[in-house]
Amino acid sequence: MNSVSVPDIIVSRLPVYLRALQYMAANGITTTSSQELGDKVGISAAQIRKDLSQFGEFGKQGTGYHIPFLIERLVQILRVEQKWDIALVGMGELGHAILRYQGFINRGFRIVACFDNDPAKIGSRVDVYTVEDVSTLGDRLKSSGIKMAMLCVPASMAQKVTDKLVESGVRGILNYAPVSLTVPSHVRVQYIDPVIGLQRMAYYLNEK
Amino acid sequence: MNSVSVPDIIVSRLPVYLRALQYMAANGITTTSSQELGDKVGISAAQIRKDLSQFGEFGKQGTGYHIPFLIERLVQILRVEQKWDIALVGMGELGHAILRYQGFINRGFRIVACFDNDPAKIGSRVDVYTVEDVSTLGDRLKSSGIKMAMLCVPASMAQKVTDKLVESGVRGILNYAPVSLTVPSHVRVQYIDPVIGLQRMAYYLNEK
Repeated sequence: MNSVSVPDIIVSRLPVYLRALQYMAANGITTTSSQELGDKVGISAAQIRKDLSQFGEFGKQGTGYHIPFLIERLVQILRVEQKWDIALVGMGELGHAILRYQGFINRGFRIVACFDNDPAKIGSRVDVYTVEDVSTLGDRLKSSGIKMAMLCVPASMAQKVTDKLVESGVRGILNYAPVSLTVPSHVRVQYIDPVIGLQRMAYYLNEK
Repeated sequence: MNSVSVPDIIVSRLPVYLRALQYMAANGITTTSSQELGDKVGISAAQIRKDLSQFGEFGKQGTGYHIPFLIERLVQILRVEQKWDIALVGMGELGHAILRYQGFINRGFRIVACFDNDPAKIGSRVDVYTVEDVSTLGDRLKSSGIKMAMLCVPASMAQKVTDKLVESGVRGILNYAPVSLTVPSHVRVQYIDPVIGLQRMAYYLNEK
C-alpha cells in the first residue's frame, strides 16, 4: 500500500491533514471539502486533492469528503491504527514534560520506557514510569522490540545515544537535542528544535 | 541584503547550518568544508554551496570555510545578532519547561513575558518571571513592541489567542498547540507538534 514512490514531501503533509480532520470531527463536523480543509491547514485545495490521490479515491466531486472515512484511511496509510511503543531518553525538565503530555496516546504513540544516566534519577518514579539506567538501553530495546525513540539528552551526548539506539533496532528518532544526528539510511530522524523555527522567522521580521 | 527572492526552503536550512557551525566552533574547530558540514547536517555539499552562494562569497575553493566568519555572516543574515524579545502564552507544564530552557539566549532569543488565563497562575513567580493575565496581552505587546510569541495553550484556545497576538503586532508565532492556525500573510507561523514528526516516521516503519 505504501509505495516507496510516494514523495516524502507528500507524506509530511498527511499528518497535518489528519490532525485538522480529527479536530473537525471532535467538533462534530462530518463532511468537508478540499477547499475548506486547505483553508484550515494553509495548503491549496489542488495540492490536497493531488496528495490524497496518491493513495486512492477519497471524495466525490461536489459532495466533498466524509471526514470519518478520510480519517480512517489516513490513520491506516500512516500506520497509526496501532500504538507505537516509544522509549524516551533523557529525563530532564523537557523529558518530564514530554512524559506527562497527554497528546500522544490518541494519535498512535505510547511512551513505554524512559532512561537517564543520572544515578539520582535512575529508579525514581515519574507518574507510572520508573526511570531506567541508560546503560541497560540496548538490552531493553532489543528484548521489547521498540522501534521508536525520543531523544531529550544534551547535544553533547546525542550522537552517542543515537548510535546505541540504532544498534538496538530503533528506526525512528524524534530528536529534541539541538544538534544534527548521523544515522544509517534505514533510520529516520525528525528534529524538534524551537530555535530553528524562531531563526527562520527572524529572517523575515524586519521586512515590511 | 535579505532579498525576498531567496526561496524559503533555503532560508529554512540556514539555521541548521548555523547550529552545526556553532557546535563545531564550541568544540574548537575553526575551518570546515561544504563536504564536512554536509556530512554533519545530512545535506549535500553541492546544496550547501548553492544555498550560501545566494548571500555572497563565503569560502575559497580548496581552503574551505573559516567557521567564525561564516557564523558571523549567518547570524547577520538570519538577523539574530540582536536578541528578539518573545512573549510566551500558556503556562502549563510545557510552558514552564520552555521558560526554563537555557538554549534560547545564546541563539538570538529572550523570553521577556509570560501569560496565562488561570487566576491561580496569574501573579505567580516562575524563575525571574511573573505570570501576567492574558487579558492584558494586547496592551503589553503593543507597549513593548514584542514581535514574536510562543503559543503553548490548548488547541481549542490557540486560534483565539493567535488573533489577539496578530492584532497586537506579533509577526512570528512558534506554535506548540497541535492545531493549524490561520494568520494574515504578513505573519509567519512555525509549528512544533511532536506527533506530526512521529506519524511521518511511522509511515516508513513497516518497510524493510
